[in-house]
Amino acid sequence: MIQALLFDVFGTVVDWRSSLIARFEQMGRDQGLSADWATLVDDWRGEYQPAMNKVRSGQREWTPLEQLHRESLDMLLSKHGLGQVNTQLREEMVRGWHFLHPWPDSVAGLRRLKQKYIIGTLSNGGLRLLTDTAKFAHLPWDVVLCSDLFRHYKPDPKVYLGAARLLDTDPKNIVMVAAHNYDLAAARSHGFKTGFVARPAEYGPRQESDLSAEADWDYVANDFEELAAQLNA
Amino acid sequence: MIQALLFDVFGTVVDWRSSLIARFEQMGRDQGLSADWATLVDDWRGEYQPAMNKVRSGQREWTPLEQLHRESLDMLLSKHGLGQVNTQLREEMVRGWHFLHPWPDSVAGLRRLKQKYIIGTLSNGGLRLLTDTAKFAHLPWDVVLCSDLFRHYKPDPKVYLGAARLLDTDPKNIVMVAAHNYDLAAARSHGFKTGFVARPAEYGPRQESDLSAEADWDYVANDFEELAAQLNA
Repeated sequence: MIQALLFDVFGTVVDWRSSLIARFEQMGRDQGLSADWATLVDDWRGEYQPAMNKVRSGQREWTPLEQLHRESLDMLLSKHGLGQVNTQLREEMVRGWHFLHPWPDSVAGLRRLKQKYIIGTLSNGGLRLLTDTAKFAHLPWDVVLCSDLFRHYKPDPKVYLGAARLLDTDPKNIVMVAAHNYDLAAARSHGFKTGFVARPAEYGPRQESDLSAEADWDYVANDFEELAAQLNA
Repeated sequence: MIQALLFDVFGTVVDWRSSLIARFEQMGRDQGLSADWATLVDDWRGEYQPAMNKVRSGQREWTPLEQLHRESLDMLLSKHGLGQVNTQLREEMVRGWHFLHPWPDSVAGLRRLKQKYIIGTLSNGGLRLLTDTAKFAHLPWDVVLCSDLFRHYKPDPKVYLGAARLLDTDPKNIVMVAAHNYDLAAARSHGFKTGFVARPAEYGPRQESDLSAEADWDYVANDFEELAAQLNA
């Protein structure tokens, strides 16, 4: 009955925080820039939901994530005393989101699931970002579905329903997989099956939310290998 | 400079004609149905462009290929004296387009190209059809781009320009690959690089068009391995 699994990507499949901190630390050494990169990355991610909220609410027209990332970076660099960072470096920092490392279990779990199901992204990232990260991290997606296909950000219904329409099947035949309870709640409200995979280190040592499943999701697993086993893959 | 290759699929990557004839011959034996399956398949494909033309011209609103296939099949079954074929079998026949075999060089060539470039579809097929065929034929796409993302059929400009927008790059950094000159002419008119791969058996022994490159396309190859070599992949 289940035909496809769609995955949230940032935090669920890839470890954006460690990847970006390591990348910026290296960049800092190369460029002779000193900063608290971990705090900068955390602050940058902190701007993620508020920036999308302006689009979600209609206060702002459709704006690709790439542009939201750049705007919030510009604001934060000034705040962190890094206003001297030049345009080229800023572009490289935004492109850092295209080259994120997977969690240790992600690739093996996806490979198992791909043998039995269609596997794809359903992310607020853009198609190019997701494609670059898939190639970098060897994520074997069958399809890349994302915000810029629908010009809406999750949890807008158009994203979930649009994905089901493109897969030409009823939402009940699709499992939405995420490390974030809000994403699963939205997917369930549209008839999707749901799979929670805990990523308690996503936000670093001080993570306080999404530490565990907050509803009776259809599947609850500690990693993708466990999820694959639950789905007989 | 080249970042991505986008491929036409029917005829360019997969051999729809032989695949469908073999499938229907088997179905005929299983169901005790006798027919000239090759002619039925050729006639069915003959309805492909006229059916899309009604959508392209605006005479008909956006209609997915799945539905166009079903309507033309219904018409042809009556014409071929197969009006007794039931609904379930008709659906199976339409789903035959989801399970097409690749040309002998397709998978090896795509695997080479994928090491160096983003590779994707840019097809008038639907996303589910292309995903099913990719899994069936082991086509290692990075992205599946197609008519139902844009709700237009090639050669509508929205398909080519929409693909470049999603890949977040200038068309000059993308090679459109097809066995059909009209597809490449349209892509070139929007600034894409072009690659012609001859598939002189696509339409069977009596093929008369697209036997060779009809313009100075950027790449002209006899198969995907040759194309990969030309692109240093």
